[in-house]
Amino acid sequence: VQIQVALDRIPLEHALLITEAVRSQADWVEVGTSLIKQFGMAAVREVVAAAGRTPVLADLKTADDARFEFGLAFDAGAASATVLALADDATIDLAVEVARDRGAEVLVDLMGVDEGRRWSLARRLPPEVVLGAHVSKDAQARGGRPVDLLGDWASGRRIALAGGLTADDVPALAGRPDLRVIVGSAVTRAQDPVGALHDLRRAAGQHAGAAS
Amino acid sequence: VQIQVALDRIPLEHALLITEAVRSQADWVEVGTSLIKQFGMAAVREVVAAAGRTPVLADLKTADDARFEFGLAFDAGAASATVLALADDATIDLAVEVARDRGAEVLVDLMGVDEGRRWSLARRLPPEVVLGAHVSKDAQARGGRPVDLLGDWASGRRIALAGGLTADDVPALAGRPDLRVIVGSAVTRAQDPVGALHDLRRAAGQHAGAAS
Repeated sequence: VQIQVALDRIPLEHALLITEAVRSQADWVEVGTSLIKQFGMAAVREVVAAAGRTPVLADLKTADDARFEFGLAFDAGAASATVLALADDATIDLAVEVARDRGAEVLVDLMGVDEGRRWSLARRLPPEVVLGAHVSKDAQARGGRPVDLLGDWASGRRIALAGGLTADDVPALAGRPDLRVIVGSAVTRAQDPVGALHDLRRAAGQHAGAAS
Repeated sequence: VQIQVALDRIPLEHALLITEAVRSQADWVEVGTSLIKQFGMAAVREVVAAAGRTPVLADLKTADDARFEFGLAFDAGAASATVLALADDATIDLAVEVARDRGAEVLVDLMGVDEGRRWSLARRLPPEVVLGAHVSKDAQARGGRPVDLLGDWASGRRIALAGGLTADDVPALAGRPDLRVIVGSAVTRAQDPVGALHDLRRAAGQHAGAAS
């Protein structure tokens, strides 16, 4: 698996320190929606600067106006950005188009959509688009787990998983090099974020630093 | 009608000048999603300072994490903030709860939902919640008009209308003191934003400065 460390609901200075600490061990660093809404694209620019060669995803959760929002994120140095699967198809298609024009990635956040919508997007969107199986923070209170969203629709697609994941969830996902696991507080709120990331890699059956 | 001037996709300095120019004639000033994602809560704080006594809405378009996002907006001085009707009910209910606790308003953006969802929210949500009939920017390219979204579900509710509206749309809406019309580029991209706002008031059958 690949591991993306998501920075959410923490002071920007703290986010930058975590970025510098984990960048050599993380495959991706994510600037969470909370940081974007609090600090705007300054948060993306600063995390990009702190991340060195590790690519940064801007969790825009775009619901509309994809050309403008994706342009902002890529101008700020993001290598990927997110659009909501709940959004209009026109918005998703614009996000895909802008990402392609800019040589960047788009992750479609499947939060809140049903299996029919997952199938429809998996069939329709180009193969480079990442589909993110995601249980929203507010819905996690009901006990939903992102792994329960996986199914045949995901076959052959680039997939990311997000929503309250910890090292306990990772062994079942090991050995899938195309799967990206997105972890937030399990790393960012750990006493030792680098140690927590090592634990995740070990749980995935990986030596620290190896990405597979 | 009430008129809300939405600031989107313009430099922040320009947004502040427009705010100062229109504040005595606008019932609400909106910090658009594009300004929030570009500049974060600094955009809300600065527009609030420029708006004087005119209340400011933060167009967060919250899709998740409503407690944190609504807290940010109200801490920055917003009197109202938006949550997506596409979001989980748990997210919408948290937005309503935080707004109530803070003595602020919540506007549920009905972008992208069907009539069944509009009915369900209109029946379920407390009466102080504003329901926003909205055709997204990206969907406007297909020719949708927000007024076409109105129907019996809106009866007895506080309603806002948004999506490419101009002075031509306003006469049909005159005489509804509870209806809020949200206008963006029709004011902000006019040669004379104050004159454009006067034209909207006249089209609504109002003398300049009168709100009804």
